[in-house]
Amino acid sequence: MTETLLLQDMVALVRPQLERLNRELIEDLAPGHREMLPLVEHVSGFRGKQLRPVLTFLAGMAVRGAAHGGVLGDDVVTVAKVVELLHTATLVHDDVLDSANVRRRIPTVNQMAGVEVAVLLGDYIYAKAFHMAVQLPDPTAARWLAETVRIICQGEITQVLHRFDFAWTEPRYFQVIAEKTASLYAAACRLGGHYSGGTEGRLRALEEYGLELGIAFQIVDDCLDLDGDERVVGKSLGTDLAKGKITLPLLYLIQQGPAEAERLRSVLGKSEAEGLRRLRAEFPLEHAVAYAMQEAQRRIAKAQASLSALPPGPAREALHQLACFVLTRRL
Amino acid sequence: MTETLLLQDMVALVRPQLERLNRELIEDLAPGHREMLPLVEHVSGFRGKQLRPVLTFLAGMAVRGAAHGGVLGDDVVTVAKVVELLHTATLVHDDVLDSANVRRRIPTVNQMAGVEVAVLLGDYIYAKAFHMAVQLPDPTAARWLAETVRIICQGEITQVLHRFDFAWTEPRYFQVIAEKTASLYAAACRLGGHYSGGTEGRLRALEEYGLELGIAFQIVDDCLDLDGDERVVGKSLGTDLAKGKITLPLLYLIQQGPAEAERLRSVLGKSEAEGLRRLRAEFPLEHAVAYAMQEAQRRIAKAQASLSALPPGPAREALHQLACFVLTRRL
Repeated sequence: MTETLLLQDMVALVRPQLERLNRELIEDLAPGHREMLPLVEHVSGFRGKQLRPVLTFLAGMAVRGAAHGGVLGDDVVTVAKVVELLHTATLVHDDVLDSANVRRRIPTVNQMAGVEVAVLLGDYIYAKAFHMAVQLPDPTAARWLAETVRIICQGEITQVLHRFDFAWTEPRYFQVIAEKTASLYAAACRLGGHYSGGTEGRLRALEEYGLELGIAFQIVDDCLDLDGDERVVGKSLGTDLAKGKITLPLLYLIQQGPAEAERLRSVLGKSEAEGLRRLRAEFPLEHAVAYAMQEAQRRIAKAQASLSALPPGPAREALHQLACFVLTRRL
Repeated sequence: MTETLLLQDMVALVRPQLERLNRELIEDLAPGHREMLPLVEHVSGFRGKQLRPVLTFLAGMAVRGAAHGGVLGDDVVTVAKVVELLHTATLVHDDVLDSANVRRRIPTVNQMAGVEVAVLLGDYIYAKAFHMAVQLPDPTAARWLAETVRIICQGEITQVLHRFDFAWTEPRYFQVIAEKTASLYAAACRLGGHYSGGTEGRLRALEEYGLELGIAFQIVDDCLDLDGDERVVGKSLGTDLAKGKITLPLLYLIQQGPAEAERLRSVLGKSEAEGLRRLRAEFPLEHAVAYAMQEAQRRIAKAQASLSALPPGPAREALHQLACFVLTRRL
């Protein structure tokens, strides 16, 4: 609860833009088609912290500095919508990949309407997002985001192909999470700045901020899957273990030696509950998570350092705080 | 074999462009990523008649008439590539939806690499296609095709939601196949003409040609699923029956009366082999297919009539012949 309040405090700066985005997004997606509307409305229930559109708005404000106030152009709002829709599409497909039943305490699309509808609805939302992006007179967002989605899929495919792969390494792990997660954070930040008239130097700083923040976000996510509180996180835990995804805490355990790695092999691919139980009972999980969280901390420090290229002001301050939130979040 | 030769004859006009497209497309899709390359190469094995890019090329030539010869600009080639990639992405996801094992005599992506990779690879190809489209200086293709993909998904979702729905009607069937299939044919034709400098009148004629051709194509497809020769068609038949898709031949049977409809209900949802066997043994399937094929014939006649708005010449003649091919194809 305290965390949610803290986050609310940080996003207060962009509350009007965020409310406008959420108001318009259902209308944008619902094309007056009576079969599509219930699906689109259901998906809007997945709405979470909305970090990505918040970052787009804050980036748009931050490149201009305190003197120019918080007025953002319509194009920045469009970019934030597209980013949020692309993220939503990946969630709908992720739930298919994970055979997940619940997201944010409501049924996933595959659970509610079947795998077929879920695959098609994800495609539908991707198409709608691209259609929105290509309405912008400046094609930068459409180009950057189409390439970003390609990179996201490339990262996800690489991860799937290397499940249960005990030759997996930290550099490859970082590469994959940069692709599948951080690339969209980087794009959200850079494009928010771009459509607000930022200079190339400031856009690069925002891009680096988003990239490092996104990497940290994914590391924390991977830790929460192993030691989070299911009631707080709001989704089932242990899925990475069950799916054989070798995340950073597991890489730490593998690096403890061949015997440890061999024992870990017998935990991967078990049911979520059994995998988690055995991991918590038989392995130094606390050390593994602490090791991963130290890396997340380094990434956050790097993200924050890159903000020095931006003019000081409340938006830059909010970006700084938001980075801390990513590190301390438990949901 | 005769049919393939006939088709070869029609596409002779655009052979150089088609060869260029196929040469460049693997390079375009393979981003020098060693994990992606085998997948991309495998998918290129799904390459079929390539009607859609052929239509884009012929449309580009046809709007200019015989006097201007067959020289097409690079942008028309790009549009044809994007259209082919979007079609490929829908195939990869269709195979997931249908749990299909074989396409064009090679394993589907879901069969070879699993559902997860298939969903992600489809997304990857969509993203690559959009990225290619937004490189064009004129945003018409990107806008039109993003909207087309949205419409395709809408049609597919509507179809899934109405499986086993005996209140399904012909108007709704035609609406769904216009959305899920014909919209991409219409876009392929219109955009080929657009990027070749066609007037609005000619573009509308091409769009109507593509729409009616696409509707006929899908009707023929739905007939082949019931009375085709598996060895010729190259994919498993009876899947519509097993999935409960109420296609035009089945609507004919339902219209024969409540008793016939009730008996049909007991055939839907059975295995492909049993459904087909019973349909062929217990129902006037020949009449049902003939009824559907008559509708396809009317659509083809309408498509051909719309060509009169174009200047005469070999490209217009090829479009005319291609429409006949769609009607007579057995694969």
